[in-house]
Amino acid sequence: MVKQSRTGVWFVGVRGSVATTAMAGATAVRLGLAAPVGLVSELPDFAQLPLAGFGELVFGGHDIVATPLAKRVEQLTTSGVVPRDIAAAVLPEVTAVEAEIRDGVHVEDAVPQLQVVARLAADIAGFRERHGLDRVVVINVSSTEPPSAYRPEHDDLTALTKAMETDAYVLPPSSVYAYAAFEAGCAFVDFTPSTGARLPALDELARSRGVPYAGSDGKTGETLMRSALAPMFTTRALRVLSWSGTNLLGGGDGATLADPAAAASKTASKQRGMAKMLGYSAGGDVHIDYVPDLGDWKTAWDHILFEGFLGVRMTMQFTWQGCDSALAAPLVLDLARFTSWAHEQGESGALTALGFFFKDPVGTDEHRLLAQYDTLREWAAR
Amino acid sequence: MVKQSRTGVWFVGVRGSVATTAMAGATAVRLGLAAPVGLVSELPDFAQLPLAGFGELVFGGHDIVATPLAKRVEQLTTSGVVPRDIAAAVLPEVTAVEAEIRDGVHVEDAVPQLQVVARLAADIAGFRERHGLDRVVVINVSSTEPPSAYRPEHDDLTALTKAMETDAYVLPPSSVYAYAAFEAGCAFVDFTPSTGARLPALDELARSRGVPYAGSDGKTGETLMRSALAPMFTTRALRVLSWSGTNLLGGGDGATLADPAAAASKTASKQRGMAKMLGYSAGGDVHIDYVPDLGDWKTAWDHILFEGFLGVRMTMQFTWQGCDSALAAPLVLDLARFTSWAHEQGESGALTALGFFFKDPVGTDEHRLLAQYDTLREWAAR
Amino acid sequence: MVKQSRTGVWFVGVRGSVATTAMAGATAVRLGLAAPVGLVSELPDFAQLPLAGFGELVFGGHDIVATPLAKRVEQLTTSGVVPRDIAAAVLPEVTAVEAEIRDGVHVEDAVPQLQVVARLAADIAGFRERHGLDRVVVINVSSTEPPSAYRPEHDDLTALTKAMETDAYVLPPSSVYAYAAFEAGCAFVDFTPSTGARLPALDELARSRGVPYAGSDGKTGETLMRSALAPMFTTRALRVLSWSGTNLLGGGDGATLADPAAAASKTASKQRGMAKMLGYSAGGDVHIDYVPDLGDWKTAWDHILFEGFLGVRMTMQFTWQGCDSALAAPLVLDLARFTSWAHEQGESGALTALGFFFKDPVGTDEHRLLAQYDTLREWAAR
Amino acid sequence: MVKQSRTGVWFVGVRGSVATTAMAGATAVRLGLAAPVGLVSELPDFAQLPLAGFGELVFGGHDIVATPLAKRVEQLTTSGVVPRDIAAAVLPEVTAVEAEIRDGVHVEDAVPQLQVVARLAADIAGFRERHGLDRVVVINVSSTEPPSAYRPEHDDLTALTKAMETDAYVLPPSSVYAYAAFEAGCAFVDFTPSTGARLPALDELARSRGVPYAGSDGKTGETLMRSALAPMFTTRALRVLSWSGTNLLGGGDGATLADPAAAASKTASKQRGMAKMLGYSAGGDVHIDYVPDLGDWKTAWDHILFEGFLGVRMTMQFTWQGCDSALAAPLVLDLARFTSWAHEQGESGALTALGFFFKDPVGTDEHRLLAQYDTLREWAAR
Ligand SMILES: NC(=O)c1ccc[n+]([C@@H]2O[C@H](COP(=O)([O-])OP(=O)(O)OC[C@H]3O[C@@H](n4cnc5c(N)ncnc54)[C@H](O)[C@@H]3O)[C@@H](O)[C@H]2O)c1
Ligand SMILES: NC(=O)c1ccc[n+]([C@@H]2O[C@H](COP(=O)([O-])OP(=O)(O)OC[C@H]3O[C@@H](n4cnc5c(N)ncnc54)[C@H](O)[C@@H]3O)[C@@H](O)[C@H]2O)c1
Ligand SMILES: NC(=O)c1ccc[n+]([C@@H]2O[C@H](COP(=O)([O-])OP(=O)(O)OC[C@H]3O[C@@H](n4cnc5c(N)ncnc54)[C@H](O)[C@@H]3O)[C@@H](O)[C@H]2O)c1
Ligand SMILES: NC(=O)c1ccc[n+]([C@@H]2O[C@H](COP(=O)([O-])OP(=O)(O)OC[C@H]3O[C@@H](n4cnc5c(N)ncnc54)[C@H](O)[C@@H]3O)[C@@H](O)[C@H]2O)c1
Ligand code: NA
Ligand code: NA
Repeated sequence: MVKQSRTGVWFVGVRGSVATTAMAGATAVRLGLAAPVGLVSELPDFAQLPLAGFGELVFGGHDIVATPLAKRVEQLTTSGVVPRDIAAAVLPEVTAVEAEIRDGVHVEDAVPQLQVVARLAADIAGFRERHGLDRVVVINVSSTEPPSAYRPEHDDLTALTKAMETDAYVLPPSSVYAYAAFEAGCAFVDFTPSTGARLPALDELARSRGVPYAGSDGKTGETLMRSALAPMFTTRALRVLSWSGTNLLGGGDGATLADPAAAASKTASKQRGMAKMLGYSAGGDVHIDYVPDLGDWKTAWDHILFEGFLGVRMTMQFTWQGCDSALAAPLVLDLARFTSWAHEQGESGALTALGFFFKDPVGTDEHRLLAQYDTLREWAAR
Repeated sequence: MVKQSRTGVWFVGVRGSVATTAMAGATAVRLGLAAPVGLVSELPDFAQLPLAGFGELVFGGHDIVATPLAKRVEQLTTSGVVPRDIAAAVLPEVTAVEAEIRDGVHVEDAVPQLQVVARLAADIAGFRERHGLDRVVVINVSSTEPPSAYRPEHDDLTALTKAMETDAYVLPPSSVYAYAAFEAGCAFVDFTPSTGARLPALDELARSRGVPYAGSDGKTGETLMRSALAPMFTTRALRVLSWSGTNLLGGGDGATLADPAAAASKTASKQRGMAKMLGYSAGGDVHIDYVPDLGDWKTAWDHILFEGFLGVRMTMQFTWQGCDSALAAPLVLDLARFTSWAHEQGESGALTALGFFFKDPVGTDEHRLLAQYDTLREWAAR
Repeated sequence: MVKQSRTGVWFVGVRGSVATTAMAGATAVRLGLAAPVGLVSELPDFAQLPLAGFGELVFGGHDIVATPLAKRVEQLTTSGVVPRDIAAAVLPEVTAVEAEIRDGVHVEDAVPQLQVVARLAADIAGFRERHGLDRVVVINVSSTEPPSAYRPEHDDLTALTKAMETDAYVLPPSSVYAYAAFEAGCAFVDFTPSTGARLPALDELARSRGVPYAGSDGKTGETLMRSALAPMFTTRALRVLSWSGTNLLGGGDGATLADPAAAASKTASKQRGMAKMLGYSAGGDVHIDYVPDLGDWKTAWDHILFEGFLGVRMTMQFTWQGCDSALAAPLVLDLARFTSWAHEQGESGALTALGFFFKDPVGTDEHRLLAQYDTLREWAAR
Repeated sequence: MVKQSRTGVWFVGVRGSVATTAMAGATAVRLGLAAPVGLVSELPDFAQLPLAGFGELVFGGHDIVATPLAKRVEQLTTSGVVPRDIAAAVLPEVTAVEAEIRDGVHVEDAVPQLQVVARLAADIAGFRERHGLDRVVVINVSSTEPPSAYRPEHDDLTALTKAMETDAYVLPPSSVYAYAAFEAGCAFVDFTPSTGARLPALDELARSRGVPYAGSDGKTGETLMRSALAPMFTTRALRVLSWSGTNLLGGGDGATLADPAAAASKTASKQRGMAKMLGYSAGGDVHIDYVPDLGDWKTAWDHILFEGFLGVRMTMQFTWQGCDSALAAPLVLDLARFTSWAHEQGESGALTALGFFFKDPVGTDEHRLLAQYDTLREWAAR
């Protein structure tokens, strides 16, 4: 196989924590300042794949705020995500990305969405051309949007496109970005629980343009633990009576999720996956609380009440204390590399083989972590 | 395949918590008083196997104390392991096993071990004949013994047998039971961390008699959790810096493990498995404390410090609160059923396919729970 | 001081878990079947007080369901609150209380509340006379009611009484019981977060009748822990940034609190107390989840993020796993004994000295557990 | 009362984490760069005391290594104890202390201890004179020593002094420092579990010189929690069946305590205190594990099994994740201020009023945190 050459990574939400950590981290790994810890694509199981090297990734993206990347790096250093010496070393390369940042989709703008798509797609295509890139992967790491209302146009590409000629609100922003990515001939990855490419009309568009997409909602904390632990109960024939969880989140994402509608979207996705893994719906609520002082850190406490032989009741509890951006950033780089390779291999539509990375994987009901890993490994070994 | 018919289950330590719970539970399941929760062999994945039914298992065993089974059932009821109504219903069948209990191996007896073997083998063979059983599986669920010293005779069957003609101490008791089981043409399962069949000379004996054996040390708590969670870290390329654990145990087993030598045996087996799963040796101590008031319950607290992208340090903790006998008893029944079937299928020597059940599986270095389950499922599907 | 003689304890919610456990437990302690564990009034600090003995307490009460006490005892045995042998021994005395149970206040009845008060007061007075009791303490251990709307009549006894001549809904049921208790010349204790006696008009009534009252909301779990731990932070000058909590509850109370309005009442009372202890309002949410399979057990997980010297952030977490009825029942007996003694001593109005027992103590802002204990001790030592 | 003027603080172990954090922090508070969080002496309860201000403390000390203070500050910055901007601002003042550091007691030196005392006392006296200080408090924050063997000379000052004329090993180093402090007319505080001033002969010396001493072993983590929580159980008449604890420690102190003899000293002191608070000895082991990657952080997990009404068993667990140096440093400054004031007030011998700060308080059996705080407050209010 031929080694992947220069690959573009276009972040929606490029000024956010995850995007900034990913860009700083890719540079640090390339410079040999950080070990490839947390990078799945660097495991021996994928050594034979001709993935783009960390020196071959070129970054750009959309955002709707103007916070300089340098300031974001400083914040990430203060909150302990990016070590100070690494920050200093990578700063020139990270701030160079400023030249490749364009204004994103503002919900309040009353512009017909097809016009917005044209603008976004031109931004992405321009980036690809300026850098002479083989391929660009568009990755959504912007703030989670509230669940959006169903519209009949979502089911049919022709109807959707027609509506977008005049309508400024037929699609939520994440789906506008997906449309633009496909329109520009690019793969799209949704790392958030937003709608993104998950509409029949957009699936149709991706297939017709021959581009793949992956998603959704990066699996980095409580759900990661759940997908590793639920199979322990099923293979041991132990019956889960309730699985309760409380998540304490700081950071930009915490503030967004403090909005009950956005939280509902995350919570529902967590519960669907659990029921799929257990084969039945165990009780238990899930809470997402905003605790500003936690910064980029998340604490999840889960309590599982289960029944064993002769009806004996037992419990298991865990506390996960993770740094969300540090967990998410390497996965975002993995996804860029795997998705670009899939694109190059001619895959189009939903990339079900990447379910390992997501809370709510497209095109599959498999949520068990190790089964997902096996699928990923076999896919890569074709 | 022909349905398995009547199968003997001969417990070493027949008056202990695990054995008594297994006998009470098998009867309860047969009478329809308890659902098959906790029984791996009853999962849909094994529905096609002609395993012995719960009405076809016949029990007997060795012990060195005289505590009546009725008293043990009462203790298990008081401590919440066996519900009172179930205890009442199964008592006649459980106490009927008294007729099939024989005196075991007393370490203080200065009798040449070949004589002891002859007595034990005759006990087992007599049981098989009295009940017209197709096969008997001998299962060690007696108190954990301290690690035993290496002797050159352990490596060679001829030398071992010769030594046992006069020597009363060449083998630890668990190995004397294994020798006797093989001598009687029976399969042997070691649910404890004791030496049991794990000596080259005994492996030779098992193969020469065409009988299989399985072991060792049932995986029911902290190690079960570890084998479900360690692969989460490796597949996500997260580096475990330390994995510390404290186990609080009551019960007969807790008292035994309060002896530092016996605890050392358990602890060493836990750490070997962890290093195999991670591919490196993470730091961290393991403690086993005796807390008499916990009765049959065990609490395990584990603290994992791990490193992610850019060297960020995070932690995960879990607290497991399980009822040991309720967790172990169904596995012991599963092992009796699977091992008897393997014997019937003509397998001999170490049953590596049963590693799923054990902390320290014989004949394999695979400790990851779900990889072990896949192996078990494939083995059963041949 | 003269030893207290026969004292009546009239439970509102007499068929509930707390009341039944209290009656079973008082009998068990009297019979010498249980040690006085959990009984504050039996500590050496109170040995000099002439409190009513456990053989001198006589029980009766109101309820709105007909579940036999014998069935409640059976349920409490099954769920592990009352040991089986104790249940058998105390059953005759507990079921004898059936003769002293009267129908309570049904919210749906459209009867002018002064008529209801007359009926309830007559029930209580009849009980006192039949048994020749010196005093009766009415204790509310019925289901928590939703917060009730403010009415101007609540502030003035004359206006209130006048409204109750015709109005069937001017007071919530718990306050109707308080009114009736005072009317009958009895002390009133509210172990629930319901309104009870906490209205200016009812305080006026209590004082005019010369009877004391205490409340509200028994402190038995998360709040108990909080009131022990918050002073650790304040005396060490550590700043609490957030104090988050999740409560998993089964039992009748769990089902009631699953109603968001009732939960809101509990949650608000928890947060008021925390702010009083810290001297500022730390962030953090409190959740109350209904997990039916937990039965009478409650699990509370609290996460405290705090700041130390030089702004360093640290955390403390605790998990409390308590049996609510077993924690509440002895306190209810303590309250009966202390309140009856206060009544005998001529105290009337709010008994601020009993704040130690309550989440939301009447007449005081002191929530710190040990300061409350000192107050109780000093009060008893007068 | 007259405001305290310039006060010397002489650290034994001046180059360690606690001492360095204390010096950096005192400067930061003085410069207004840090709030007085964690400083007990700055609570409103002590506002009326004429304690030395943070600008009036002058630092110096003994150590046996040469690691520059600037390097220690850098390490404390990297490990998150001292924020980078504060470190930069205080560095000049902290490094200025280098001029006041003298070589300490090396165990391997075979010099008669009275000679060593003379040298140390001269160091301290010289410091006092150079800076024209009113008083100097000597504070031991050096590495914990292993428990030392009893010698009859420890009970009598004359015998001890005589032995020290020729003997190089009659006292452990911490006691040599205490002797020197008293000899120089200075107060002595032992923040470690080492022997220090806790020998009858040294108590005699302190009294004869009219100087006070305090100790021992700063209470900053698990024991702090225990002393806040144990009284919850006793005042509620709940019986603790077992109290188990595991401590994971990194840092210099962790390495020292990995030595079983040093750990035994800490563990024994923890258990004595618990028994005093409960009034009986509950079971349960305490472990101290060295986990190097934890750096200055400590994690303590405690599991408490307790019995309530009718013998019901319940549990409470906590996890404390604290930064040891950040917790200890302000207490060390508090102790310097309070002890200097006591000295000025003419107190001599054991300062029992300072028990609030210590795991193993001299001269008192009171271990309950809030009772200790009340004592401190009353002492300060004389
Ligand atoms: N960190 C994790 O572990 C993790 C896991 C799963 C999902 N996620 C998701 O990743 C996303 C990013 O997380 P984060 O911590 O970086 O959040 P963040 O708040 O730091 O960054 C989000 C960025 O998106 C930008 N943005 C908002 N609306 C936009 C729009 N319409 N167009 C373009 N940009 C827009 C914001 O200005 C901001 O710069 C969130 O949706 C989060 O839910 C994160
Ligand atoms: N319960 C679990 O989850 C679990 C998991 C793994 C391993 N195990 C092992 O299973 C074994 C049994 O556990 P348990 O809780 O039933 O213990 P137990 O103490 O209740 O029972 C052990 C029985 O073995 C008997 N015994 C002791 N020495 C003997 C000998 N030489 N010959 C015959 N009998 C002898 C004892 O008299 C007793 O009746 C232990 O070794 C334990 O380590 C249990
Ligand atoms: N158990 C604890 O630790 C604890 C702590 C604080 C407060 N409380 C409060 O104590 C109360 C009792 O708890 P429980 O666990 O016994 O609940 P429960 O559901 O077992 O019992 C409540 C009883 O009150 C009765 N009841 C309901 N409405 C009534 C009415 N209008 N008049 C008379 N009786 C009525 C019910 O029929 C039931 O028998 C609850 O309000 C709970 O919030 C309990
Ligand atoms: N940090 C806490 O929360 C806490 C709580 C209670 C007790 N303590 C005790 O405080 C002490 C200091 O802790 P740390 O974290 O600063 O340790 P550290 O290892 O960072 O510092 C100890 C210092 O003492 C020096 N030292 C060793 N032997 C000496 C000697 N004979 N004379 C003079 N100096 C000597 C070492 O060279 C080092 O600089 C320890 O004994 C620890 O047990 C700390
Ligand atoms: Na079958
Ligand atoms: Na002051």
